[in-house]
Amino acid sequence: MSELRQNLATREWVILASERAKKPMDFVSATPRSPEPEREARCPLCPGNEAQTGKEVLAMRSDGRQDGPGWRLRVVPNKYPALTPSPNCAVIPHRSLNGPYLRMEGCGYHEVIVEHPRHDQTLATMTVAEVQVILEAYWQRCHQLAPDCNNLLMTIFRNYGAQAGASLRHPHSQLMTTGIVPLHVRTRLYEAQRYFDDVGTCPYCDILRHELQARERIVLENDGFLVFVPYAAGAPYEMWLMPKRHRASFGEVTQEELPGWAAALQGALVRLAHLLGDPDYNYVLRTAPYTMAAVPFYHWHMEILPHLKTTRAGFEIGSGVSINTVAPEAAAQALREVLSTIGGEAHEA
Amino acid sequence: MSELRQNLATREWVILASERAKKPMDFVSATPRSPEPEREARCPLCPGNEAQTGKEVLAMRSDGRQDGPGWRLRVVPNKYPALTPSPNCAVIPHRSLNGPYLRMEGCGYHEVIVEHPRHDQTLATMTVAEVQVILEAYWQRCHQLAPDCNNLLMTIFRNYGAQAGASLRHPHSQLMTTGIVPLHVRTRLYEAQRYFDDVGTCPYCDILRHELQARERIVLENDGFLVFVPYAAGAPYEMWLMPKRHRASFGEVTQEELPGWAAALQGALVRLAHLLGDPDYNYVLRTAPYTMAAVPFYHWHMEILPHLKTTRAGFEIGSGVSINTVAPEAAAQALREVLSTIGGEAHEA
Repeated sequence: MSELRQNLATREWVILASERAKKPMDFVSATPRSPEPEREARCPLCPGNEAQTGKEVLAMRSDGRQDGPGWRLRVVPNKYPALTPSPNCAVIPHRSLNGPYLRMEGCGYHEVIVEHPRHDQTLATMTVAEVQVILEAYWQRCHQLAPDCNNLLMTIFRNYGAQAGASLRHPHSQLMTTGIVPLHVRTRLYEAQRYFDDVGTCPYCDILRHELQARERIVLENDGFLVFVPYAAGAPYEMWLMPKRHRASFGEVTQEELPGWAAALQGALVRLAHLLGDPDYNYVLRTAPYTMAAVPFYHWHMEILPHLKTTRAGFEIGSGVSINTVAPEAAAQALREVLSTIGGEAHEA
Repeated sequence: MSELRQNLATREWVILASERAKKPMDFVSATPRSPEPEREARCPLCPGNEAQTGKEVLAMRSDGRQDGPGWRLRVVPNKYPALTPSPNCAVIPHRSLNGPYLRMEGCGYHEVIVEHPRHDQTLATMTVAEVQVILEAYWQRCHQLAPDCNNLLMTIFRNYGAQAGASLRHPHSQLMTTGIVPLHVRTRLYEAQRYFDDVGTCPYCDILRHELQARERIVLENDGFLVFVPYAAGAPYEMWLMPKRHRASFGEVTQEELPGWAAALQGALVRLAHLLGDPDYNYVLRTAPYTMAAVPFYHWHMEILPHLKTTRAGFEIGSGVSINTVAPEAAAQALREVLSTIGGEAHEA
């Protein structure tokens, strides 16, 4: 018989149907990713092709000049933006009516974080120091954009592989800002606030405390961060990366915490790549809206969601309830142990 | 510049980025669906293979006996159920704690509606009378299962094609019942109730009234039903099928209304198949929980969601906001006009 599990923080139920369980190998794609060159002449994100993107809004560089080569990381506007910054929206985001319906202009920033000069790198092949540069860029853009009320909510995400929605192979992630807090996010904030009202603690802090004690679903841990498979994971090998220190917004993270965050993120993605044959995945950074950075009930974190030949079908669309065929405890064990079975790694301890 | 549109009933925003608009032909798959035989010896849902399924819980048959051939439609338990009925859950669905987390046994019905004896039929090739038989089966199972408190919510859905999550080609849809009203559904009920509190009318009735007046997004209409592309459609060529008569639960539909429902559903799917090369799709039947069948603020309807080489990527996962690249008005016009451009059909008028 299957089991229903509820996520303590989001109050979403999932169905865990692990009778149909598959082994990690069953998820590995039959067609491995094609190898990439260090530099791809036609890639708009490769060094030397800077003129093919919009002007950089942020760059980390040891040499070279703006919009030329020599960078370690660049942030540029998305060439096909879903939202665009506009002076019309500078003061207040304006709604209008179309019949009975609300509408507004698509104001917001939509940017690409070009994570590394080398075309063939992934977060799982970069060094921890290189991953840290990416997180620094997230943090800087958060602080540069947040004061504008049109950027109330920042969504940072990474689509890796075609199944995850990526159209370019060059390592990159994206950010989008909106002047609204969408229903999906508001619901999570509301459920966390209800929990805080009832229990007096942040539900994410309580999850963290329990996971550290139970030690059944931990993938890796360091001084500042925990990576674990959530009790009510909605998909096989889903992982949550959570800072041990309570903060609603990742914008509150200090410089000293970035190395631990980078090591945790890199370690999680190395394990995923080794265990499941470098699968496509999405990650999203969930953080409170800028104006709620100090609330005691929300806790920023990252969700890492591999794409593993599983489909969000009619039942999931209709009910919002996911069906997961891999027990979170088994997924965590496999992810935790994968590096030791292939010879170990420096950050395995 | 893109546009944000809000769904009046669900309060979900979508981004309409139709600068990147594609024509219907751009969505047509390069590899058309392979033709199917009328009967497939290895198909567990084909006539003659009844022993390969669990015992039928409902059948429409002109001749033959239970679990033998001669049926027009059968309802059988899903062979790989995500939920199973259990005597343990018969009285009250029981929760227990696992550490701080809620869990319960996976009680519920998970059934397959085998829609037609012929392996090669689809809802777009069946007659309206045959489609009506399917809707009658939905309705009967609703009334047979609803009195049990473990079946508080019934989710009926159809996965058509591998991308939509179907593992069998034989025409079928599915139903699942749960003793919970998941957060996703509860949020929709709550938003509709808020609207009712503020405005005094059902938001779905107001949408219907406006769409009938504006006539910009209508796909087809008959006496009892309207099929339209919603103002804030989240995906290209998404359609909503809505009864003109206000009812929270589809279980309240009378026998007289079934032909109109069947004609609307069949007409919508014929148009989809013609316009977009018989694409994979999901449909879901959204209906109030059994105990809320009489509420004035909710309105049952069907959502038809084609799978068109679009991906739910990081931004959609993180924000819950969909990005749609086809204007609902253009999608509706193409769907409305497709049959006349290929010679018309009886129910085109």
